[in-house]
Amino acid sequence: MNTILEQTFSVPFRYPVCFTEDLFDSKNTILADVLRGERVPKVLFVIDSGVSDTHPELINQVKSYADKYKDMFTLAAEPIVVIGGEACKNDETLYQRIVEATHLYGIDRHSYIAVIGGGAVLDMVGFAAAISHRGIRLIRIPTTVLSQNDSAVGVKNSINAFGKKNYLGTFTPPNAVLNDFNFLKTLDDRDWRAGISEAIKVALIKDLSFFEWLEENAGALARREMSPMKEHIIRSAKMHMNHISGKDPFEFGSSRPLDFGHWAAHKLEKLSNFRIRHGEAVAIGIALDSTYSFLQGRISEADLKRIIQVMKTLGFELFASELKGESLIQGLKEFQEHLGGQLTIMLLKKLGKGIEVHEMDEELIHRSVALLQSFQEKGNLIPS
Amino acid sequence: MNTILEQTFSVPFRYPVCFTEDLFDSKNTILADVLRGERVPKVLFVIDSGVSDTHPELINQVKSYADKYKDMFTLAAEPIVVIGGEACKNDETLYQRIVEATHLYGIDRHSYIAVIGGGAVLDMVGFAAAISHRGIRLIRIPTTVLSQNDSAVGVKNSINAFGKKNYLGTFTPPNAVLNDFNFLKTLDDRDWRAGISEAIKVALIKDLSFFEWLEENAGALARREMSPMKEHIIRSAKMHMNHISGKDPFEFGSSRPLDFGHWAAHKLEKLSNFRIRHGEAVAIGIALDSTYSFLQGRISEADLKRIIQVMKTLGFELFASELKGESLIQGLKEFQEHLGGQLTIMLLKKLGKGIEVHEMDEELIHRSVALLQSFQEKGNLIPS
Repeated sequence: MNTILEQTFSVPFRYPVCFTEDLFDSKNTILADVLRGERVPKVLFVIDSGVSDTHPELINQVKSYADKYKDMFTLAAEPIVVIGGEACKNDETLYQRIVEATHLYGIDRHSYIAVIGGGAVLDMVGFAAAISHRGIRLIRIPTTVLSQNDSAVGVKNSINAFGKKNYLGTFTPPNAVLNDFNFLKTLDDRDWRAGISEAIKVALIKDLSFFEWLEENAGALARREMSPMKEHIIRSAKMHMNHISGKDPFEFGSSRPLDFGHWAAHKLEKLSNFRIRHGEAVAIGIALDSTYSFLQGRISEADLKRIIQVMKTLGFELFASELKGESLIQGLKEFQEHLGGQLTIMLLKKLGKGIEVHEMDEELIHRSVALLQSFQEKGNLIPS
Repeated sequence: MNTILEQTFSVPFRYPVCFTEDLFDSKNTILADVLRGERVPKVLFVIDSGVSDTHPELINQVKSYADKYKDMFTLAAEPIVVIGGEACKNDETLYQRIVEATHLYGIDRHSYIAVIGGGAVLDMVGFAAAISHRGIRLIRIPTTVLSQNDSAVGVKNSINAFGKKNYLGTFTPPNAVLNDFNFLKTLDDRDWRAGISEAIKVALIKDLSFFEWLEENAGALARREMSPMKEHIIRSAKMHMNHISGKDPFEFGSSRPLDFGHWAAHKLEKLSNFRIRHGEAVAIGIALDSTYSFLQGRISEADLKRIIQVMKTLGFELFASELKGESLIQGLKEFQEHLGGQLTIMLLKKLGKGIEVHEMDEELIHRSVALLQSFQEKGNLIPS
């Protein structure tokens, strides 16, 4: 008497991830090529205030570029400047302003939003684009190390809600990711450094040779040399792309994102009211979970010292007062709720190889914190 | 000097579409089977007030069912009742209440929201589910003809914004669609009838034999016989499923949804402040675009009369005062903006075969309206 039909289909996604310089130079055709099509689409530019402040010429460059390539695309309106940094994900009126702009300027599903900025602005504007008209085409132009080597190549967007990071969002791949290395030159030292922690993360759980490359180049990266910076970004972005396309892009199952060190990082960001930036928090989270892996006997003291050393060479702080006390432990529960299902934490099996576990020992977490604090105060990681 | 990588992957979707009766009878295992898994998931039920008013026993049935199958799933909270009908998509605090409930009750990505109701409530709750935690699993339990034979099998959700229908939403397939025919028995005559227009729509543009079946069964359907109602729902749902899985489920390209008669329908709903229900508006929209197709010489007078006759037999009004004047024409522009790209309107090439056109003649639209008005007043479609 019952009738049961089964609906099955696959949705294909394809987008270019480009690495260039001088993206808005009139001779650089990458953006125009991405927008070239049967129609001349409207493009709404949204720019991170941190970027437009540091690059006051940027808005005029965008306009000149649009004028030069007016046969390929038209500007829907004056570029919109939005406040940068995590704050833009906490204030819901900001994403609503982008949604309203799509209404005011008639941005349809065949138009584009091009967003220039750091990961937080990409997340927030991406969310507005994803839910307007059930998805306006999105071009991400990431301007930080963190967004170029990690988040911008991914398929997620989000804003924060109920005091929870990334509570609202969707899995919506972009239509293109255009990385302009020149934006990195004007980053302050904290942001230059912070993003590198995501590369250390992926190297530690997936690729020993990349970790060894990072050890060799940590000094040059700390001295702000561009050549290793570019190389590490492309290498890290490729690894993230492969992880996403590999098995479960929209994380339907129990497969995890590349989130070593992230349960503590998310909590630290919030506990510090975002004084600690995401990449900085990830570095501390990596240090914490590496120390925990050592205390569990998974990696050797020598391995742990190499991990700590590469992050110290890069200039990372590896302890924060927010690690102390019981609040940190609450982050485990929130991490579980965010990913859904049972608790799954990535630890280290060895350098270059992660292992998933489904419980964390609170006492061992506290001992890991104590070791990091001791190292911070005495420069001596393992008491002899 | 530029590096260009290409990211490609496909995301597979699979979900059952079930047709049953007495879904919450303790002997009916369909829902429990859908929820069966490695873990015992939490399920948050959300119920359309129109359904809970008509079925005051429903909430207790859901609770008894949950108790019986407590090894398969647990209730996350008391079922939430939300106001039914299009109003629930106009008031943004309503979807926000569902989002907040996911926060309050710890509904994660491996938990479920099960929504029982008409198409508007399914749309609104589906939107809340799609953006919370980047997508909570959704079980749709449609209770109207319109949602069972059409919208619930689809991949869309939405709310209205800026006075525009479905302005905010996502393409997010459900995890299951469970149709309980018993809910149809308590529909008022308007809702019983209204949904059949979506079947006429799909038959007219895709399947002459289904249209002929509808002609033969229009009287029985008007007399509220269940057997042809069930048959037409399954047949219509299958056609919609095939259309979605066929080529472009998320409508990235210029492929259109099955939207014959819909440009005018969307506008009529709004112009009448939703006095005219969606399915009723679709019937008028079909009559309008069929008449237009006739005036363009695409179909014969005999064909047009058959179309009009089947809808009259079912009891549809085929004219509304909102068709008069210039406001209707504005709906063409809004339809284009919503779908994006150039204007594309489905007309009839013949009975059972649609044809896409890219412009509409305003004068001919007005003449079509005049013919429908004349028919309304004099019962005489084509002045001789």
